[in-house]
Amino acid sequence: MTFPVVGMVGGGQLARMTHEAGIPLGIRFKLLSDTPQDSAAQVVNDVVIGDYRDLDTLREFARGCDVITFDHEHVPTEHLRALEADGIPVRPGPDALVHAQDKGVMRARLDAIGVPCPRHRIVSDPQDVAAFADEGDGFPVVLKTVRGGYDGKGVWVVDSVEEAAEPFRAGVPVLAEEKVDFVRELAANVVRSPHGQAVAYPVVESRQVNGVCDTVIAPAPDLDESLSLQASQMALSIAKELGVVGHLAVELFQTRDGRILVNELAMRPHNSGHWTMDGAVTSQFANHLRAVLDLPLGDPRPRAAWTVMVNVLGGDFPDMYSAYLHCMARDPQLKIHMYGKDVKPGRKVGHVNTYGDDLDDVLERARHAAGYLRGTITE
Amino acid sequence: MTFPVVGMVGGGQLARMTHEAGIPLGIRFKLLSDTPQDSAAQVVNDVVIGDYRDLDTLREFARGCDVITFDHEHVPTEHLRALEADGIPVRPGPDALVHAQDKGVMRARLDAIGVPCPRHRIVSDPQDVAAFADEGDGFPVVLKTVRGGYDGKGVWVVDSVEEAAEPFRAGVPVLAEEKVDFVRELAANVVRSPHGQAVAYPVVESRQVNGVCDTVIAPAPDLDESLSLQASQMALSIAKELGVVGHLAVELFQTRDGRILVNELAMRPHNSGHWTMDGAVTSQFANHLRAVLDLPLGDPRPRAAWTVMVNVLGGDFPDMYSAYLHCMARDPQLKIHMYGKDVKPGRKVGHVNTYGDDLDDVLERARHAAGYLRGTITE
Repeated sequence: MTFPVVGMVGGGQLARMTHEAGIPLGIRFKLLSDTPQDSAAQVVNDVVIGDYRDLDTLREFARGCDVITFDHEHVPTEHLRALEADGIPVRPGPDALVHAQDKGVMRARLDAIGVPCPRHRIVSDPQDVAAFADEGDGFPVVLKTVRGGYDGKGVWVVDSVEEAAEPFRAGVPVLAEEKVDFVRELAANVVRSPHGQAVAYPVVESRQVNGVCDTVIAPAPDLDESLSLQASQMALSIAKELGVVGHLAVELFQTRDGRILVNELAMRPHNSGHWTMDGAVTSQFANHLRAVLDLPLGDPRPRAAWTVMVNVLGGDFPDMYSAYLHCMARDPQLKIHMYGKDVKPGRKVGHVNTYGDDLDDVLERARHAAGYLRGTITE
Repeated sequence: MTFPVVGMVGGGQLARMTHEAGIPLGIRFKLLSDTPQDSAAQVVNDVVIGDYRDLDTLREFARGCDVITFDHEHVPTEHLRALEADGIPVRPGPDALVHAQDKGVMRARLDAIGVPCPRHRIVSDPQDVAAFADEGDGFPVVLKTVRGGYDGKGVWVVDSVEEAAEPFRAGVPVLAEEKVDFVRELAANVVRSPHGQAVAYPVVESRQVNGVCDTVIAPAPDLDESLSLQASQMALSIAKELGVVGHLAVELFQTRDGRILVNELAMRPHNSGHWTMDGAVTSQFANHLRAVLDLPLGDPRPRAAWTVMVNVLGGDFPDMYSAYLHCMARDPQLKIHMYGKDVKPGRKVGHVNTYGDDLDDVLERARHAAGYLRGTITE
């Protein structure tokens, strides 16, 4: 057969679930993973163990791949350009991906194309942060390293000029942003292919706990239709203007005064899209693969009135398997997705999806299962 | 984590799809495959290449597995007993599996537990076949080798004593059966776990072309509720009486006079259950794994009014990828499952699933896609 080879850089759970979605597609899936124990490396046949920061390793890996895509945003932009210069399609490409790698570049670009964002500015020291605060409503101010942050890491909410010292210690550029008065967070997920086809998943509500995604509800309950449409159009427009290929997650603030502001961008399958595995006609992982291969995209519509995703975080007990039995017995409709990772407190080790017609019931079932697996619910 | 290791013997598409279902379960999946090119061997991380007919190979493979299960029925029964004697759980076990390996044993056992079957008898030569024919309605008679047949191989429909010579040439025992006057074929799929929990999927209609499964419609259209119940109860009862662990497919004839007779048994995920991957809350592959691990079983109920599966057979063109693009573009809701196998005329290389409220539409979409992929439809 002449089915293509997709190379994915990064061995985390996103790569694991992308491989799962690639099996029915009949494509060949090749993985570059840090260690053989990584989540995806446990389940993929064709695994190269190596360091994605090393260009020779990337080049060696890319040989024999028809296209390269990513489980994370950490591959240096110059390496991506080198692979492109070698003639390897890199999707999303470096010109797009830099907007998910560098929050400063992202903010500047979204400003230029007229996408509403929180008030922001690159700041150089604590005094500069104080000046930024004075220009708006004062402290608190959100400070972010422009590169390398995720799941609340690399993000500080500071209440004074004294507290603003910490983020500058690493010596990397820092972005200051207003602390948005939001009623909730939303995510608009879209997928775009090289030939320009794009699909939009329903806009979801995303609830964070300690900076980490906890619960996603699809679609976002009680979301005004015009706001929903605005969010989807914004995401489609960002995908087009930035030349994104693959899955784009646009994390949004819904403000108290009824606006939508862009918080973050991710150009890969995203935690806010895990509900699609059981809740949509085509999952984000399948559509990401279809996009990077320039195949026609699959239907993004939901299969149920409500789908809820709750992350399973590690708790105090390393053995999750007996809790797992209990959850399966309690709810035969529960969809559990485990990542094969060792349990550490607070670590994302899996997620559960539930779906149905009654949101309260669907929410309760997902929360109970995730809580029971973590050990915070014991009945 | 203390998640168990499932070892599957056989590298075909059933193992490939079982691995796909095992990824979200978080279990470890180990494969014994004839070659590295086999369908499942392409996508599984932990593959042992070896011959399942060799006991030492099986023993070496089984070391480090918590349970052994199968992609096919061809492992010699005595090897299974040896593994059990070594203390390895074998599921289904040899005492159950022999009924799927040997049609003579199967018929005798079903007779003993009162399950209706076509009239049958082990025959020793063409004269014996003629005598069997005379005892009933005469020729035609169906002759089957008791072991080793599949997809129409090892099965003959003979019209005379002269034609009855061929099946005896291999020197293996031959079973004679009446040629049943059936209106259609059905399949009742159930899953049973060691602790005795069992679930029944909706009874489906299965259409064969040249002895090979072509189309499966779930649920079977216009099936009388009492017949449907009878078929499910029959399958559950066979699973219990034979001590089956895992997925059991009971292939049935619906006769013109309104009876249901057992045609064949398979004790593994089965082609008549492929629709469950997109059409049921829990797929047959996920439930087979849950059963062999003695985990609580998942909900077998359908997610759509109608789900149709059509097998994709190889045609004259080795390159299926461009047809694949066309099918995806024509029907964004189409679910394609490719097996990674080289295209050979008539070979099962994948299947498509469609689902929805309108059976005619669902059937047309699945048939069109499968026909287009094979090359028998070109528009």
